[in-house]
Amino acid sequence: VTAHFGDRLAAAVERRSSQLVLGLDPDPSRLWPQALASAPEAGPVIGRIGAAVAAHCAAVIDAAGPACVAIKPQLACFERLGAPGWAALQRTVEHARAAGLLVLADGKRGDVPVTAKAYAQALVGSTPTPLGDVPGLGADAFTANPLLGRDALEPLLEAAAAAGAGTFVLVRTSNPGAIDVEDAELAAGRPLWERLAELVAELGAERVGESGLSDVGAVTGATEPRHLARMRELMPHAVFLLPGIGAQGGRVEDVAPAFAPGRAGGLVTSSRSIVHAAEQRGGEPGEAARAEAERLRDAAWALG
Amino acid sequence: VTAHFGDRLAAAVERRSSQLVLGLDPDPSRLWPQALASAPEAGPVIGRIGAAVAAHCAAVIDAAGPACVAIKPQLACFERLGAPGWAALQRTVEHARAAGLLVLADGKRGDVPVTAKAYAQALVGSTPTPLGDVPGLGADAFTANPLLGRDALEPLLEAAAAAGAGTFVLVRTSNPGAIDVEDAELAAGRPLWERLAELVAELGAERVGESGLSDVGAVTGATEPRHLARMRELMPHAVFLLPGIGAQGGRVEDVAPAFAPGRAGGLVTSSRSIVHAAEQRGGEPGEAARAEAERLRDAAWALG
Repeated sequence: VTAHFGDRLAAAVERRSSQLVLGLDPDPSRLWPQALASAPEAGPVIGRIGAAVAAHCAAVIDAAGPACVAIKPQLACFERLGAPGWAALQRTVEHARAAGLLVLADGKRGDVPVTAKAYAQALVGSTPTPLGDVPGLGADAFTANPLLGRDALEPLLEAAAAAGAGTFVLVRTSNPGAIDVEDAELAAGRPLWERLAELVAELGAERVGESGLSDVGAVTGATEPRHLARMRELMPHAVFLLPGIGAQGGRVEDVAPAFAPGRAGGLVTSSRSIVHAAEQRGGEPGEAARAEAERLRDAAWALG
Repeated sequence: VTAHFGDRLAAAVERRSSQLVLGLDPDPSRLWPQALASAPEAGPVIGRIGAAVAAHCAAVIDAAGPACVAIKPQLACFERLGAPGWAALQRTVEHARAAGLLVLADGKRGDVPVTAKAYAQALVGSTPTPLGDVPGLGADAFTANPLLGRDALEPLLEAAAAAGAGTFVLVRTSNPGAIDVEDAELAAGRPLWERLAELVAELGAERVGESGLSDVGAVTGATEPRHLARMRELMPHAVFLLPGIGAQGGRVEDVAPAFAPGRAGGLVTSSRSIVHAAEQRGGEPGEAARAEAERLRDAAWALG
């Protein structure tokens, strides 16, 4: 029997005493110096920088990972390095799992049903071929875009459930432009994001584990903390993935409503403020990252 | 000076006498037999099947490409094969360009601005690194998801313009679930997709080339042909990418309103009905694909 994602997550949060998710958005121009120095000296640039990105992510995981429950690799940052970038992503996933961390693949995918099935194979499943099955990335969860509606989400949710994985559906994002579409006022007198929240709740209602958490979660931008109480009302069992802490301007103290169903009900995500903590705090990149991750972990734990 | 995408597209449509886009959604279980047979006999399955997928796509391009103006690789179908899949995608892009075809990368990406910039680097730009620039996929255009709003689209559009590339923004998709969100009724008494269409028109208004076409286009599902006239009203300069022809149930005869601004105003996309034409028509896969592509090309050309 495959374990339920919500239950796996709740156990991991307790075991690691952390609701902090380490965002990995590697920028080749801002890699930690020792990772860049470890790049092979010969060969095509794309392969050398791919290896450096993998080394950087491994070093960040080694430094900040102990204060976290999961990593959240940003797929765009790996894709821009082509096949070597995807190989670096795979190595990063494996490094995180070996360190006892869950992996939330952040690609915000969304497409018509037949294609959604292919994305699920890429992220949490495997692809049957005449030469044998090809395993995907092996993520524990992924982000998804709900614009295409219920039938486009269902193949993702089904594949996730079969793998004991979870889905985080975009409900309200943390960028200023979210007002353009996500906040559009519906005829029913409420913003579109409330409709998206309802969709998440409907899809997740029969997928609630013993922890009280569903395996259908939501991306809920913490730059608008006034929305969080309403989101919790609409989605009582969803795990909230809270981006926007740190570099994007959100404050960890504002997100308390997320934790109503328990500590694993809210995952606090931070990326650049941890990885580049040395630029604020001074000192060695790894030590600064560890200290900042511990600070964010403790701040969240005190709330939930 | 970098050429404008709308103008490049209009010239290509005239030069090739085709508005047909060849969708490439390779399913490893349904590769053309000679492509599968060409897979290396040794090595990991993922690498062998990646090579077979690249051979399949090259064979499909060789057969059906002469009747088309562009290919539309579905990124999900390559991603599910990991780094070898991305390498197969890169080879497919290069094969298409050598055959004189444009490349529309179909990944429906959408993310907050900093991440959108990374997706643009992956698709149409390049990524600066301390070891030198890493070129991206080199697509001529890509699909994008507008849920996150204007500021999430702008980095994509800017990078596209700098590369002479185009963007196709989702407005109304061809799946039944599109009624859930895209068709949601707004307070203004119209469906959400009309708001998305307005956003496309606003973003593209200052990006109209000499052809009369903007480099900001729209994905407009042909399974709802009754919407096309209204879409054209709202987006007079946008190129419409029309999925849903063939396997998804749309009919090429229903899409005439798309061609109002000229033949390149509507791109007719077909994937499985071309690639697997032999299953309907009988005969050799390549010959059947070529015949079906020519049939679809001629049907569209007669309208526009």
